[in-house]
Amino acid sequence: MSKEKLKVAVVGATGYAGCELIKILLGHPEVTITSVSGKVEEAEKISEIFPLFKGRLDLACDNVDVPAISKAADLIFLALPHKVSMLFVPEFLKAGKKVVDLSADYRLKDAGIYEKWYGAKHTSTGLLKDAVYGLPELHKKEIVKSKFIANPGCYPTGSILGCAPPVNKGLVDTEQIIIDAKSGVTGAGRAASLALNFAELNENFKAYKINQHQHMPEIDQELSNAAGSKISVTFTPHLVPMNKGILSTIYFTLKKETGAAELLALYKQFYKGAPFVRILDEGIFPETKDVYSTNFCDIGIKVTGKRVIVVTAIDNLWKGAASQAVQNMNLMMGYGETAGLAL
Amino acid sequence: MSKEKLKVAVVGATGYAGCELIKILLGHPEVTITSVSGKVEEAEKISEIFPLFKGRLDLACDNVDVPAISKAADLIFLALPHKVSMLFVPEFLKAGKKVVDLSADYRLKDAGIYEKWYGAKHTSTGLLKDAVYGLPELHKKEIVKSKFIANPGCYPTGSILGCAPPVNKGLVDTEQIIIDAKSGVTGAGRAASLALNFAELNENFKAYKINQHQHMPEIDQELSNAAGSKISVTFTPHLVPMNKGILSTIYFTLKKETGAAELLALYKQFYKGAPFVRILDEGIFPETKDVYSTNFCDIGIKVTGKRVIVVTAIDNLWKGAASQAVQNMNLMMGYGETAGLAL
Amino acid sequence: MSKEKLKVAVVGATGYAGCELIKILLGHPEVTITSVSGKVEEAEKISEIFPLFKGRLDLACDNVDVPAISKAADLIFLALPHKVSMLFVPEFLKAGKKVVDLSADYRLKDAGIYEKWYGAKHTSTGLLKDAVYGLPELHKKEIVKSKFIANPGCYPTGSILGCAPPVNKGLVDTEQIIIDAKSGVTGAGRAASLALNFAELNENFKAYKINQHQHMPEIDQELSNAAGSKISVTFTPHLVPMNKGILSTIYFTLKKETGAAELLALYKQFYKGAPFVRILDEGIFPETKDVYSTNFCDIGIKVTGKRVIVVTAIDNLWKGAASQAVQNMNLMMGYGETAGLAL
Amino acid sequence: MSKEKLKVAVVGATGYAGCELIKILLGHPEVTITSVSGKVEEAEKISEIFPLFKGRLDLACDNVDVPAISKAADLIFLALPHKVSMLFVPEFLKAGKKVVDLSADYRLKDAGIYEKWYGAKHTSTGLLKDAVYGLPELHKKEIVKSKFIANPGCYPTGSILGCAPPVNKGLVDTEQIIIDAKSGVTGAGRAASLALNFAELNENFKAYKINQHQHMPEIDQELSNAAGSKISVTFTPHLVPMNKGILSTIYFTLKKETGAAELLALYKQFYKGAPFVRILDEGIFPETKDVYSTNFCDIGIKVTGKRVIVVTAIDNLWKGAASQAVQNMNLMMGYGETAGLAL
Repeated sequence: MSKEKLKVAVVGATGYAGCELIKILLGHPEVTITSVSGKVEEAEKISEIFPLFKGRLDLACDNVDVPAISKAADLIFLALPHKVSMLFVPEFLKAGKKVVDLSADYRLKDAGIYEKWYGAKHTSTGLLKDAVYGLPELHKKEIVKSKFIANPGCYPTGSILGCAPPVNKGLVDTEQIIIDAKSGVTGAGRAASLALNFAELNENFKAYKINQHQHMPEIDQELSNAAGSKISVTFTPHLVPMNKGILSTIYFTLKKETGAAELLALYKQFYKGAPFVRILDEGIFPETKDVYSTNFCDIGIKVTGKRVIVVTAIDNLWKGAASQAVQNMNLMMGYGETAGLAL
Repeated sequence: MSKEKLKVAVVGATGYAGCELIKILLGHPEVTITSVSGKVEEAEKISEIFPLFKGRLDLACDNVDVPAISKAADLIFLALPHKVSMLFVPEFLKAGKKVVDLSADYRLKDAGIYEKWYGAKHTSTGLLKDAVYGLPELHKKEIVKSKFIANPGCYPTGSILGCAPPVNKGLVDTEQIIIDAKSGVTGAGRAASLALNFAELNENFKAYKINQHQHMPEIDQELSNAAGSKISVTFTPHLVPMNKGILSTIYFTLKKETGAAELLALYKQFYKGAPFVRILDEGIFPETKDVYSTNFCDIGIKVTGKRVIVVTAIDNLWKGAASQAVQNMNLMMGYGETAGLAL
Repeated sequence: MSKEKLKVAVVGATGYAGCELIKILLGHPEVTITSVSGKVEEAEKISEIFPLFKGRLDLACDNVDVPAISKAADLIFLALPHKVSMLFVPEFLKAGKKVVDLSADYRLKDAGIYEKWYGAKHTSTGLLKDAVYGLPELHKKEIVKSKFIANPGCYPTGSILGCAPPVNKGLVDTEQIIIDAKSGVTGAGRAASLALNFAELNENFKAYKINQHQHMPEIDQELSNAAGSKISVTFTPHLVPMNKGILSTIYFTLKKETGAAELLALYKQFYKGAPFVRILDEGIFPETKDVYSTNFCDIGIKVTGKRVIVVTAIDNLWKGAASQAVQNMNLMMGYGETAGLAL
Repeated sequence: MSKEKLKVAVVGATGYAGCELIKILLGHPEVTITSVSGKVEEAEKISEIFPLFKGRLDLACDNVDVPAISKAADLIFLALPHKVSMLFVPEFLKAGKKVVDLSADYRLKDAGIYEKWYGAKHTSTGLLKDAVYGLPELHKKEIVKSKFIANPGCYPTGSILGCAPPVNKGLVDTEQIIIDAKSGVTGAGRAASLALNFAELNENFKAYKINQHQHMPEIDQELSNAAGSKISVTFTPHLVPMNKGILSTIYFTLKKETGAAELLALYKQFYKGAPFVRILDEGIFPETKDVYSTNFCDIGIKVTGKRVIVVTAIDNLWKGAASQAVQNMNLMMGYGETAGLAL
């Protein structure tokens, strides 16, 4: 292959999303990983941090050094915690780099809402207008022209894709949208925490941050945009004793009765150009295992009178983070949308 | 202990509920198990079917023989599949035995509804009026006087207990009750089935029988009774990759705003005499591990404006089946309600 | 029950063994828990640390205060980390209390070996001779007369019980004993640690501390005693993605061929008076689920020529820690050996 | 890509190995899947059997029809149960097709041993001499020239690779090789079976077929070949509550003491040309998650005097079945050995 590959950096390589991102990029035909970094006590080979990379990627992972990374790479993925990402994004953009930020720092257009939900001053508000919310199924046109993507959160990805078609068409009573979401444990990040210990979560199921999860305003923002009017969803996240996957069970009421077939047709039409959304046949519902380590979002629908139940499944670390970031890169760079992603 | 113990039989001893029932009864101070039976190819020691009973219970488990069982025991627990239970219950009652039936066969007062949801003719309709729905927190007075209990289903137990107080007080918009329930796998029974194989369910999460689970009419019946008007809930069950436990996340709208403190006080008042319902403090929500192998139902509440989210947790095989059956026996026999159940 | 109950304290109540110990003691007919303590930031109700105790135990858990605890209780269980336990045990003994220490601090008779394996000075060597190694199946006579028990480790319990009979009879080539042990995750303790995170251990299996686990000298000590000659085993522990249970697969060579039936008879004879050891029939092997939350050690044997494979199963937190501590208390106090333990 | 792709068929597509095989082949640059078949009640789309293939593979899966398959494909993978495979292999070979058989039917060179361990007459003994045992790390030269591969079993792959280097060099006391292997549940196949139900295996660990698993003679055959003398290993398989992965803990005694560094060097030398064997540094041991969905076999070594403990990890469905089959195809066809396999 004589064509020169795109040099990419993974900043925040020591977390679960960073790890999956490296995995995906290693198999991507158009790119080469030239830098990995993250918060480490001292520089260490990425193959020592994640032994699965032994013999596959030999880079050292050091703390974030913007000039060095900017020299090494042309497109930067940041898989850092929120609040940390906005310390580095401005510098990479100033250095002329393309940026895909997987954190929450540039997803919310209203800095006041960010500050309320994330409990911190937003220190980079000037860039909010430049960031494109990187949900390709809704914003492909802007993504294609952008050099700075705010990659969506995991819960929002599954929630928004499940609601957007009928909300956009004005079919839904938007006062009563309820999203009951269930996530695998990697969604909570890779850190020492008693609450995340195996023995605390295995053979256990629980809800958390009920109706006060920081992903709610992100869902509200995007559904409000889709509806053209203000929406506030009810949202309950739960923790499932599994590593990966989010299943979202969404309840809403139609303004007037519409059959399942008609609704399914609407979803198919809405996602016609979207290679990673699969609308299941009537009576079939998604399971997280069928989207495991893929960029798919599977959607099934149940209609009873005006009551609709939509079930969506994604891999929280793939479509909910890393592979969606690669999908965004593909669009930004003009590669095929599915490059490196069609397992 | 000179007092003579009550002789009890476990019919349907080879399933998961039967197994837990034996475990609980072995530690019960007032009873002795004199018979175990179920569908078997040939008689086999119960300690060979369930090696955990080795050295603890030496009875042989044979196919159901009503006269022999009636001779051996005075109170009969039936943990049989629905449709099978009603073949035997009439005979045990005719023999003058007390009966606690864990199947669904006598839970629905309306045989027509049974026949619609269970897809089978009800062959014992004459006894429906005699069966008391064995949810002690709602029907203790009738249970105490009864000799025939229809023990509630697992999903209904967690769902009804979570809704009953405000529904009974008329506070709830009963058109919009949504129950999103998540169950461990033992709820599906103990049988050879590809769909229940470890590798199909582990590291997977899914919904099933969406808004058409056969436990729905049971919830509707009891909540309608509590409300004094007809209620039809929306109900989605899910399968969690764990053995035991049900978490139910319940959504409803209040007719007028009521604070969390006031609602919690209402729940506490409603369950004042109920030793196995624990109302958690504001901001605290139940996890299934905290009710594992107990008869407790833990309840937590979140209020946002008129929107209420109630979360309940039970052990599906204990409070959702076996230990609730023992609680019912305790009440029928005049033992302390908690006898043999306070771990 | 007019008889006064024994007042017991649980020191180290915030760990997994402490939690199970409280569970067991709450159901014990002869005792009442009067004190719980452990390392906490500030005093907190034990039912807030472990919500499963809500409504069942209302004590506050504070940091360890020896005089206060000594005033409150007559028998002290210590479920503290090694090195910490020996800071308190001498004081409780001096105060005339009976002590069951679940830590490793007094298990090894040779302080030099302790110091080598635990990497710390032993500060209480004078008490080593007073401590009885609390494996009732081997040391019941001493336990009955003792007031200070060093409760065995989890791995040693399953390993020693599996080897002791033929080793004691001199049938085994003691140079070649191999123990391949697999433990649930609670064995690693209850603490914040990335290595113990759900997503690091779920859907994963690994060995650790290969032939250098600190439980090895404990196994060696007891098997050497049983043999009357020095034994050094080969020992590999593994981590199983489950909460509780240890399965030990033990390999040794007989000096001369002996049939399975004869060996099984030897095991049954050896454990004749031991209510918690179950020798399985030929061709039947233990599974950890059958000893879950019990004090049983199940043993199965496979013989091929001179090669013997013994498989033992225990619950690491029960027979491997908490319930064995209660068994020891029962013996020390003259209660029935099985009091409060026969589920 | 103008080059014509190889047409391949997957016979036995409805099992777990078949499913993984399809997944791998879909991403392979040199092949196209033209036929999938297996035992089905009636023809069904493979994307209905395995919904993960929705939108990715649209073939119908019908019962095995040798002429039709032979017409459609040039290389046939058979992922059928043993005894069934030998009904079809002769016909495909006769039709001039290349064959990679994942069953056990042609792995053992001695039909008598096959008949003893598999309890069935071998009906295709004439072809045994033509089958090459497809462990590329030992038999690459023959594989390259072969058109008929007997793909190794999952346990043998991890066991043989862990033992071969020192056994081949004559360093090992071959009388005392012990292999303690632990497998994820997919190893047991995809079929309705009570013993494989989630609730029977989750939160449980057990040994099975102790020293009598049908993979033993396969290990013996290959290690005997490597040693040049007859070897009979001791072998205990266990079931781990996880989907995929085998960890093998191997114990043997060296004829004379050899340091870990020297042994590791020997392993590295032995596997010099093997891209999928990774020898870990001293003190590092494999975990199954690091080889999950890869073709790697990771190997770590612990030496204590003459006692050696080797730990190997593979993915039972990849290196233990499907990806090894593709590795064999790559060698047979002259593609790069790693084509389609370097994740």
